[in-house]
Amino acid sequence: MRLSLLAFLATLLSTSHAAFNADNPIRQLRRSSGRIGLGPDYKVNCQSFRVGVEANNLRDWITVPSYCKNYIKTYLTKNQWGLDIEAVTNEAYEYAVHFQKDAFLKDIWVFDVEETLLSNLNYLASSDVQYGTQPLGLHYYEWLRANGTVVPAIQELYDEVLEMGFEIILLSAAPSSERETLVIALTDAGYSGWTKLILRDEADNGKSTVQFKSEKRLELKGLRYRIAANVGDQWSDLTGEYVGLRTFKVPNPVYYVF
Amino acid sequence: MRLSLLAFLATLLSTSHAAFNADNPIRQLRRSSGRIGLGPDYKVNCQSFRVGVEANNLRDWITVPSYCKNYIKTYLTKNQWGLDIEAVTNEAYEYAVHFQKDAFLKDIWVFDVEETLLSNLNYLASSDVQYGTQPLGLHYYEWLRANGTVVPAIQELYDEVLEMGFEIILLSAAPSSERETLVIALTDAGYSGWTKLILRDEADNGKSTVQFKSEKRLELKGLRYRIAANVGDQWSDLTGEYVGLRTFKVPNPVYYVF
Repeated sequence: MRLSLLAFLATLLSTSHAAFNADNPIRQLRRSSGRIGLGPDYKVNCQSFRVGVEANNLRDWITVPSYCKNYIKTYLTKNQWGLDIEAVTNEAYEYAVHFQKDAFLKDIWVFDVEETLLSNLNYLASSDVQYGTQPLGLHYYEWLRANGTVVPAIQELYDEVLEMGFEIILLSAAPSSERETLVIALTDAGYSGWTKLILRDEADNGKSTVQFKSEKRLELKGLRYRIAANVGDQWSDLTGEYVGLRTFKVPNPVYYVF
Repeated sequence: MRLSLLAFLATLLSTSHAAFNADNPIRQLRRSSGRIGLGPDYKVNCQSFRVGVEANNLRDWITVPSYCKNYIKTYLTKNQWGLDIEAVTNEAYEYAVHFQKDAFLKDIWVFDVEETLLSNLNYLASSDVQYGTQPLGLHYYEWLRANGTVVPAIQELYDEVLEMGFEIILLSAAPSSERETLVIALTDAGYSGWTKLILRDEADNGKSTVQFKSEKRLELKGLRYRIAANVGDQWSDLTGEYVGLRTFKVPNPVYYVF
């Protein structure tokens, strides 16, 4: 099957006049032809992995491919991660500035906490996690409490939308038992002024993050809150029910929340 | 406001022990602090622009920033575009292989046509469009008919899912008047075996792409079709009603469909 398809493609390509165009993408796509479906033998390009995660194409993955560890380290610790976050926050700021508030509903911004308002990069970079090539462990919140850091561009956005008169709701899938840890880490990072910090209760055990956050957003809707924007680092923050008038995906190539 | 916030951040950073960690992202994020909301003066990083588009963060843009023309040209005509498409098609293939078909519903794959099954890169690279730094013109379909090229990795996926017994529905927002052009371009590219090619009729004039495609997907639902997967290069293909059990965003940094 692979061979016959390759032969077919080769014929097709050799007869396509477009194939003579120097800009023709087929020139390099030919290299990838026939590699589809190699399963475990297929090695995804590390930048393609990162972008595929951001586009919600790559789902349900457990760890970053081991050979991408240095790529992810460079992405997070050199310039690109910061530039990508800056692109998101600038777009979000422009959206907020031009947003038409509703006269009767309470327009709010919903922010996720972990890896959105706060970075736990010191833990993600630790020997436990190794930039996502190892799964997250139980120590995430200990590290966040001790070593969590602010993400300045996100905090600027947070402060700006608060100043514009939006209420801010923090919605995290963390268990209620971590409330104190999150409040301390948020306060240490300089965040203040949120209306609610919604966490996962006993009753939410066994619910997926999408289900849990969808239910909580629908409860907000019932309280006449309108979600002007929803900001999170996971697609499970931004999909499901009543996701908001606009979503902003904060880049996170290190782990995937189911 | 900017200055006080910067001063505040500077203080915060200088007192954060995490700031002494060599991997601390704050080191470079500081550079971007305070740049939020500069509006027209803000220059987005070209890779951040591309990734922001793929993540559905950057919306409603008219053209690629002029200073990103060479970046986009390199992205499309060297290796990365092909690698990114390969990452999507491999993920989609693995999804298709493990998909549990429904006993009573007709499981289908929905594909967009323009820049999904077919590449019109010769037009996008032309002096008319200049890699998206100029808006698309009326000649898109003329060029597609004459110079459209297959995207091999996508065609392999198409052929594989067809062979697996999925019906394939092509859903394009092109006007019905372009039906002959699309059929010729698809056939020249080697595509065959689709069940329907759904295009925009008179009655659909004035509808946004999201509305039009949502309505057509709901009509498919009414015909007992279940969308196993939905593949397109625009978020307007992949958002709205009944988007499918899984979406696959094909990279396209050149234009945005409203």
